[in-house]
Amino acid sequence: MRVRATVAYDGTDYRGFQWQVNAPTVQAALEGALARITQSSPRILAAGRTDAGVHAEGQVIAFDTTWRHSLSDLERALNAVLPPDVAVRDLAQVRPDFHPRYDARSRLYRYTVYNAPVRSPLARRTSLHLPGPLDLAAMEEAAAWVIGEHDFAAFGRPTEGEVTMRRVMAAGWTVEPPWWWFEIEANAFLYRMVRSIVGTLLLVGQGRLSPQEFGAILASRDRRRAGQTAQAHGLCLIQVKY
Amino acid sequence: MRVRATVAYDGTDYRGFQWQVNAPTVQAALEGALARITQSSPRILAAGRTDAGVHAEGQVIAFDTTWRHSLSDLERALNAVLPPDVAVRDLAQVRPDFHPRYDARSRLYRYTVYNAPVRSPLARRTSLHLPGPLDLAAMEEAAAWVIGEHDFAAFGRPTEGEVTMRRVMAAGWTVEPPWWWFEIEANAFLYRMVRSIVGTLLLVGQGRLSPQEFGAILASRDRRRAGQTAQAHGLCLIQVKY
Repeated sequence: MRVRATVAYDGTDYRGFQWQVNAPTVQAALEGALARITQSSPRILAAGRTDAGVHAEGQVIAFDTTWRHSLSDLERALNAVLPPDVAVRDLAQVRPDFHPRYDARSRLYRYTVYNAPVRSPLARRTSLHLPGPLDLAAMEEAAAWVIGEHDFAAFGRPTEGEVTMRRVMAAGWTVEPPWWWFEIEANAFLYRMVRSIVGTLLLVGQGRLSPQEFGAILASRDRRRAGQTAQAHGLCLIQVKY
Repeated sequence: MRVRATVAYDGTDYRGFQWQVNAPTVQAALEGALARITQSSPRILAAGRTDAGVHAEGQVIAFDTTWRHSLSDLERALNAVLPPDVAVRDLAQVRPDFHPRYDARSRLYRYTVYNAPVRSPLARRTSLHLPGPLDLAAMEEAAAWVIGEHDFAAFGRPTEGEVTMRRVMAAGWTVEPPWWWFEIEANAFLYRMVRSIVGTLLLVGQGRLSPQEFGAILASRDRRRAGQTAQAHGLCLIQVKY
């Protein structure tokens, strides 16, 4: 049977989700745990291949297994052997052709900025420390440009043969000082698209770009005009919707 | 001159605040940074000697220094050489006999419980994972017992010659599922007192003790009757008031 599961992880100590030779990845941790529990070596499918250092609250995976006990037993057994920085939940049987990536309707990411003069030791793994004032109104105005269907070539590299059109359903900032959260939901994302958008929005917040210039960068479809890609550790895959 | 500073730290990788031979402590990290920056080796005084694994958002320290530049320069220099899991802020000159421990009027601690079926990788360093239902009303009723001036011998070991009377100004739970936060403010705390109270309150939340039995344990002044000390990593020293 095919099983779907939600996965949360602290990406700090991983080279990203996807399997790599001789590098710790979340996929390798999950496949290792499955092999140990089920005595078979299923390949895991995932909704999104998060980058090195990126976290997840709601990554979604699927795998095939001949497990004969209950899914809550499988959940318990997996969490007992997985490392402390990876956990699975909400296991459910799905149809044999369910694919967490191709069947997803949208993904929701959150980027966290810690805006204070001094860095925060307790938030250092999950937020970008950025001192200095940020202009919320300007950042909100700029963020509004990405909502809708656009060619996002300025904010992300397509993988080979991929088109660069994406549909953003929602994008905006929530602020509870010293915390600034940017949430963005889209049907799909280009490689490093969220971090590239955040890096450019932060230039707007710092007054180094106007919201209009942000809009012009999007329209230009020119990767070289976007701001620096914001660091990976502020980013978290919150939810995948089906 | 004597300088006072607020210190935040992720206690995960430390054997507590206080200096120990051949063990990583927050005090050693701070004294090492000060020695490197100021070319002298001042002893650091602190408001509270937090245990191994306990965190701080608002520990307060004081030290003497002959630093001749501005205090914001000292703050920047210290944060540049301190490890990523320790940071200082709000440096200020104080009177030469200021003592962060003896001059403190009260301390505020927060204990964080993650109440969900599956553990959280991203919260694993800063919260206790506790699955299963918790009875908020019963825990609030029990928590009310500790408010006021009491002999807390049941919930903490005095250091030699110390009395066990303490005055608790406030104690209570805040819940936003899956998060349960217990905050307690007192003039001072006995060794492991917060964690012992939390461990016993959680027994009440699980229905294994009644609020009345919690009150009887406090009144008994008998250390053996309290619940297990809750794990260190859920505890954080939030603020010290003067």
